[in-house]
Amino acid sequence: MRIGVFGSGTVGQTVGKKLVELGHDVMLGTREPGKLAEWADGAGGKASAGSYAEAAAHGEIIINATAGTGSLAALELAGAENLGAKILIDIANPLDFSQGMPPFLAVTNTDSLGEQIQRAYPDLRVVKTLNTTNASMMVDPRQLADGDHDVFVSGNDTAAKARVSELLREFGWRSIIDLGDISTARGTEMLLPLWVRLYGALNTPVFNFKIVR
Amino acid sequence: MRIGVFGSGTVGQTVGKKLVELGHDVMLGTREPGKLAEWADGAGGKASAGSYAEAAAHGEIIINATAGTGSLAALELAGAENLGAKILIDIANPLDFSQGMPPFLAVTNTDSLGEQIQRAYPDLRVVKTLNTTNASMMVDPRQLADGDHDVFVSGNDTAAKARVSELLREFGWRSIIDLGDISTARGTEMLLPLWVRLYGALNTPVFNFKIVR
Repeated sequence: MRIGVFGSGTVGQTVGKKLVELGHDVMLGTREPGKLAEWADGAGGKASAGSYAEAAAHGEIIINATAGTGSLAALELAGAENLGAKILIDIANPLDFSQGMPPFLAVTNTDSLGEQIQRAYPDLRVVKTLNTTNASMMVDPRQLADGDHDVFVSGNDTAAKARVSELLREFGWRSIIDLGDISTARGTEMLLPLWVRLYGALNTPVFNFKIVR
Repeated sequence: MRIGVFGSGTVGQTVGKKLVELGHDVMLGTREPGKLAEWADGAGGKASAGSYAEAAAHGEIIINATAGTGSLAALELAGAENLGAKILIDIANPLDFSQGMPPFLAVTNTDSLGEQIQRAYPDLRVVKTLNTTNASMMVDPRQLADGDHDVFVSGNDTAAKARVSELLREFGWRSIIDLGDISTARGTEMLLPLWVRLYGALNTPVFNFKIVR
């Protein structure tokens, strides 16, 4: 299917490349599409780059892989008319590195980035997911314990979460936990401070959370 | 050894009873020790109840199992002279239920309850741990997957973390992850919003996090 991916960093490029490999028609959206010519060439097949508005118009599904503190600005550039009532998969985290390491959350506790996006674009069907792992784990969960660990989904639209879960299974995810409505994105976004400390303590980003029950 | 446990709720009583079973001499500290006569009788052996000050004076190690929003007030009643340079195991979470469910955190993101306690009592050797599970899991991790899941420790004093880890192993914990200094308590306290949502989604408090790596 046609997918628009917002963000030209490691996460956007990694997810975009994986989607192309899976046979999808992907346009990466960014402020400076010229810089992504190499990505589009390297990704091969149905890979292209454009503005946020062009990527939004291209996608039947949109993935927000921008830096979380810039996500709302990116969506504004994309334009509500191009976003429509599409599914937006929000995989960003509102990490603020302005005070150095460790980062803190720019929105948290009584609100979340996922909710901010949903409020700003009420027609969008926002599904928060994948924000609890690094880019390589997002698209290749089987690299670790054959995928015996968890990913979470949060969102108000049950059908949208089911559709996104199909995509997660294409990535290799075996266990998907539906936390509930979009306000549950607070929980997964607030996992990031622990993730960052575990990265330091374990000295590797190749780990993930499994809910043992 | 002699242990003072602050808090007369489910967590304090459960942890206190387990410590007595393990052969420790436990005094529960509370505002109204009279209410704990039944606990002391039921726990058997070396179990008693007293004021916060009496429990603090009693313990070679102190465990903070009060409601997180009341912890600093409890420690003030205990008195710096009774706390001294002892190890304080902080298992509380600063959950604020005043706005209903789900709770939010009264301190978070750029600070934590663990850090607040450490700052207020610089001589105390604060170790944050066990705050990421419910009371029954804290003292009996083997009830789930034979203990194949994780507990975290945060604290500035390496020797204190080693001593607390011994106690955790007495409880049955097999895997203990040292996150670093007391500021890493932000990470585990910020896990609570996800814990609360998982409790709802899974419909049981009998689960725990395992860091797959």
